[in-house]
Amino acid sequence: MPAGMRVGVLTGGGDCPGLNAVLRAATRKGISVHQHEILGFRSGWLGPVEGLTTPLTLDRVEDILSRGGTILGSSRTNPYKIDDGIARLKATLAEHRVDALIAIGGEDTLGVAEQLTHDGVPVVGVPKTIDNDLDATDYTFGFDTAVHIATEAIDRLRTTAESHHRALVVEVMGRHAGWIALHSGLAGGANVILVPEQPFSVERVCEWVEQRFERQYAPIIVVAEGAVPEGGKELLVTGERDAFGHVRLGGVGTWLADEIARRTGKESRAVVLGHVQRGGTPTAYDRVLATRFGLHAIDAITEGDFGKMVALRGTDIVRVPLSEATARLKTVPLERYAEAEVLFG
Amino acid sequence: MPAGMRVGVLTGGGDCPGLNAVLRAATRKGISVHQHEILGFRSGWLGPVEGLTTPLTLDRVEDILSRGGTILGSSRTNPYKIDDGIARLKATLAEHRVDALIAIGGEDTLGVAEQLTHDGVPVVGVPKTIDNDLDATDYTFGFDTAVHIATEAIDRLRTTAESHHRALVVEVMGRHAGWIALHSGLAGGANVILVPEQPFSVERVCEWVEQRFERQYAPIIVVAEGAVPEGGKELLVTGERDAFGHVRLGGVGTWLADEIARRTGKESRAVVLGHVQRGGTPTAYDRVLATRFGLHAIDAITEGDFGKMVALRGTDIVRVPLSEATARLKTVPLERYAEAEVLFG
Amino acid sequence: MPAGMRVGVLTGGGDCPGLNAVLRAATRKGISVHQHEILGFRSGWLGPVEGLTTPLTLDRVEDILSRGGTILGSSRTNPYKIDDGIARLKATLAEHRVDALIAIGGEDTLGVAEQLTHDGVPVVGVPKTIDNDLDATDYTFGFDTAVHIATEAIDRLRTTAESHHRALVVEVMGRHAGWIALHSGLAGGANVILVPEQPFSVERVCEWVEQRFERQYAPIIVVAEGAVPEGGKELLVTGERDAFGHVRLGGVGTWLADEIARRTGKESRAVVLGHVQRGGTPTAYDRVLATRFGLHAIDAITEGDFGKMVALRGTDIVRVPLSEATARLKTVPLERYAEAEVLFG
Amino acid sequence: MPAGMRVGVLTGGGDCPGLNAVLRAATRKGISVHQHEILGFRSGWLGPVEGLTTPLTLDRVEDILSRGGTILGSSRTNPYKIDDGIARLKATLAEHRVDALIAIGGEDTLGVAEQLTHDGVPVVGVPKTIDNDLDATDYTFGFDTAVHIATEAIDRLRTTAESHHRALVVEVMGRHAGWIALHSGLAGGANVILVPEQPFSVERVCEWVEQRFERQYAPIIVVAEGAVPEGGKELLVTGERDAFGHVRLGGVGTWLADEIARRTGKESRAVVLGHVQRGGTPTAYDRVLATRFGLHAIDAITEGDFGKMVALRGTDIVRVPLSEATARLKTVPLERYAEAEVLFG
Repeated sequence: MPAGMRVGVLTGGGDCPGLNAVLRAATRKGISVHQHEILGFRSGWLGPVEGLTTPLTLDRVEDILSRGGTILGSSRTNPYKIDDGIARLKATLAEHRVDALIAIGGEDTLGVAEQLTHDGVPVVGVPKTIDNDLDATDYTFGFDTAVHIATEAIDRLRTTAESHHRALVVEVMGRHAGWIALHSGLAGGANVILVPEQPFSVERVCEWVEQRFERQYAPIIVVAEGAVPEGGKELLVTGERDAFGHVRLGGVGTWLADEIARRTGKESRAVVLGHVQRGGTPTAYDRVLATRFGLHAIDAITEGDFGKMVALRGTDIVRVPLSEATARLKTVPLERYAEAEVLFG
Repeated sequence: MPAGMRVGVLTGGGDCPGLNAVLRAATRKGISVHQHEILGFRSGWLGPVEGLTTPLTLDRVEDILSRGGTILGSSRTNPYKIDDGIARLKATLAEHRVDALIAIGGEDTLGVAEQLTHDGVPVVGVPKTIDNDLDATDYTFGFDTAVHIATEAIDRLRTTAESHHRALVVEVMGRHAGWIALHSGLAGGANVILVPEQPFSVERVCEWVEQRFERQYAPIIVVAEGAVPEGGKELLVTGERDAFGHVRLGGVGTWLADEIARRTGKESRAVVLGHVQRGGTPTAYDRVLATRFGLHAIDAITEGDFGKMVALRGTDIVRVPLSEATARLKTVPLERYAEAEVLFG
Repeated sequence: MPAGMRVGVLTGGGDCPGLNAVLRAATRKGISVHQHEILGFRSGWLGPVEGLTTPLTLDRVEDILSRGGTILGSSRTNPYKIDDGIARLKATLAEHRVDALIAIGGEDTLGVAEQLTHDGVPVVGVPKTIDNDLDATDYTFGFDTAVHIATEAIDRLRTTAESHHRALVVEVMGRHAGWIALHSGLAGGANVILVPEQPFSVERVCEWVEQRFERQYAPIIVVAEGAVPEGGKELLVTGERDAFGHVRLGGVGTWLADEIARRTGKESRAVVLGHVQRGGTPTAYDRVLATRFGLHAIDAITEGDFGKMVALRGTDIVRVPLSEATARLKTVPLERYAEAEVLFG
Repeated sequence: MPAGMRVGVLTGGGDCPGLNAVLRAATRKGISVHQHEILGFRSGWLGPVEGLTTPLTLDRVEDILSRGGTILGSSRTNPYKIDDGIARLKATLAEHRVDALIAIGGEDTLGVAEQLTHDGVPVVGVPKTIDNDLDATDYTFGFDTAVHIATEAIDRLRTTAESHHRALVVEVMGRHAGWIALHSGLAGGANVILVPEQPFSVERVCEWVEQRFERQYAPIIVVAEGAVPEGGKELLVTGERDAFGHVRLGGVGTWLADEIARRTGKESRAVVLGHVQRGGTPTAYDRVLATRFGLHAIDAITEGDFGKMVALRGTDIVRVPLSEATARLKTVPLERYAEAEVLFG
């Protein structure tokens, strides 16, 4: 294996607990085992386009393992959508004599990585999404942390619901995939779980709610932000406009809490967890997964195994083609949803 | 001290971490030291009006110390606003041979307790509000838990804000008093804290925000739900209507995030913490305070010292007249707010 | 599938976060989907031997999902080592008309389950060990919680180590397998991790410790309770005797901290985490895994698929023969240990 | 008030969550309000003796509020016990043109501060002890965090104790004062609490233990490390010797667990929490208190109000003479202990 390479690293897309753990592991192994130099690019793909760099040394990555977010910053920049973006990116890599890149990100970031591979830039990808919706890996880091935070919130809300005989709707992240809703709902003992994969019937939700009240308990409904009522998304349009004059699409959680109150006559409240789900210190699970990803990514770089993404399969870290990683969204299979549904009510 | 009394207990108003700790302490000491019998009334003042009872035995209060909410349930019922409410309440007390009542609640619940004292019902009050806005006690249980939860959320949001160079507005509880905002803002290192006690200037907020961005850090703004911009509450009215057709008063947090984005051109997001702040297991601080309140309340009952409320002064539990407890709201003094303001930006 | 069976359930061996989640899921699905009756046996295998029962109803399993330990109690009783144990066990099952048993436990409990299958008792097993050392499943519930708790402790200890320029040795659970040490060590950024699978050289440990101090940081050493120095276990014998007069085998953590202090001249302290690692509320990960195990176990029972154990493979729950489950211990493979070792120092 | 001073700061004694919050608050207010320069001295009093300095700028104190330990490092150095210690200390202060010192520490550190005041060095003290045993302040930061951590551990241990019908002894910090034991014991619902202030009878402890078992629950005993059985400390001497050949004084927790097992015939285990109690991120309560101490200390410096210590009285921060602060230990009053004792068993 060639040692002494110059390796660039960047983090793209939404922030995610565990990014710093990847940076630390790749940097430590890169420097102390492979004698590489590690160069951080700041703000996602904007970094190599604009030449925004920051060296990653042993001292720089000390003490970042447990910190959320990313010390490199992030962005949603796509170099293919910038004039001369790829040329400028290649010029930056040449200027800094970067031999290969580690790109840590979700669908968009890895999509760029995949394209760059075809355009002659040697890249290894590391999957990242709190939504857990990347198809080529069993789990992504950040997901366990998001589920952990949502579950803690559900635990807290349950005692309030019980004390006031109130329905509580908890809206969690998940625009296209319901993994966070499914897992936090199971972990929190939710009485209804609603996911984007399956339009929901408000009538059916209200039946579960009333069934629960009849048993003298209070219902908790966990709903993914991307879940849609059977009537369609238009039901969620509100009359409100934001400071820019745009009409808002109301959150499904708030809408559903109103509907439940109206139809069942019971008190009902919504809580929208929002960004707290993606920040802060990663769980131990995510730190281990992210660390292993970082260690394996720097090995793939060193072996010249480009165009690949590291991935979790069972308990093993494997490599899969980047093309496979971004081919399709991993949504909640109907049988997994049905498995949970027997616990509703 | 007379032993062997029959003591009724109820919890009123919004739920609050620590209520069960009060119930447990009062029940255990009542039974094992004073040989009392303890009778729980369910659903706040509705319990003695409707005769909803549940005995509190040693076994019933085992294992509830660490649980949020209240095993007695709660309500906002005011017996003085119910036809024959007081007569029915007295009849219930007579029927169950209740010698005296412990009423655990906030301004409203204790206001009823105070009136009942004048109407010949022997009551001892225990203060409860997560907002910490009762004047006669240094702190109320539930407040520390609310601050703890809000601070954890701020800690998590900070890494997201930094990673994306984004302003984050965190809306916390506090309709009339800004204690939760002040303490969680201080504890979370917020760059701006806004409280109901002082209308805020959006211009000034944006200055702090920009000052923070100039120093290459991302701003966190903590705002109490009751904080009002200098232009007045009307600014917060949205066009949206709820499922009942009522026009909504938009949350100040969301409004402020929009304003910051519009005025500074920076990305800005709002997170509304909501009910998670009042649920779940109490902090150690709140468990100790609630336990001590429970122990002292049952002593006051036993001594026949009615019309009083237990309260914290320094490190001591004292008794104050119920009238004093509900005389005025304890808001954040301007000098306490000014003390924090030097840390803004 | 036959509905309306009478299903017995028991929990054996050391307690483990997630046991109650299994009980809840199996009971809820058993009752509401399969119309079974569920009978809990108390105190592990002692329950069916002595006829200690407690019915598991929907109300009984309400509110237990998030609670650590087991509401059934546990024991290390082996019915094969009790006079007439198996006869009495069978008599109890007959008396209560129990059609089949779910046995939740580790190596010992499942070993009994396996034997009983051969002796004509229909059993389905659910694996349980915080040590994660059962071979037939990718993970067991309880393990993630133990790792989470150990990692939190390491996070806390790090700031103390740094403030005092001190080495800190953290002894975690794991008598025969080093999984908790490996994962919590990786998650906590430990500078040395020692596992039972590989005798350690104190000299080598001290080199890593000194290397760390030279870089102006303080070392954290995570050691599994079953790790052994190269000189052998005898090194750990102390002169101390317990209240029963037995000579104690000292903990490896305390011994190692002393050795480090003696050899390097640096301050060094040991912390033995002990039982806190196995108690309290399970993590979201463990609740989901335990819930899925419970759901699948009751299905296996209903299908009459006895002599099997539910197990996790990747993201799927599968069934494996009980014989396979207890065939051999799953220890940390040397390559997994080597993967972590590059981060030492 | 004179602005533009040069202010030295140091942290002495054992580390404590909240130290960094004091440093941050004093530095931020010192720089932005009073135009001071802030100079950190490293490793407690060793810093000004040896001239170990590190400037505290706005950037240096960014992001430290939530971190445990102290970025300045600490030591137990007493300059009065070093040859020429005071002369060298004064020389350092002169060399760096330091106008006044903020000394953050416990009894020893503040004792030196008090002496220095008499020797002409202008000092303001900030109290720090997780043990909460300083007499002149209602509470010290670090204490709430220690109680919080101990309480979490007790919560976890309770489910283990119940599952195995086992007595669990939890040894917490507190060599001379039982505040941590008292508060965590109350918060965790301990069935016995033992403090250094009152020698305990093993017989009486065993009565409570058996009473608890008779009620079908498992006992938790919280014992401060400095608690002593009625027979005296000698009972705790073990035969064991450490790596240096010194005979060990066994921990009271382990000893007591053995005694309980021997006398009651019940299973009994000890957990010694140790250093986890003093590390890691401070609770919100401690961050607020530490921040307020920092803000008030820099004001006292600016006003030239030397020889004072900031202190908490009720909800106010006040100043008290340093001499008062170190005059006597604040131990648990017998009536506070008796208040808790009614909950034993």
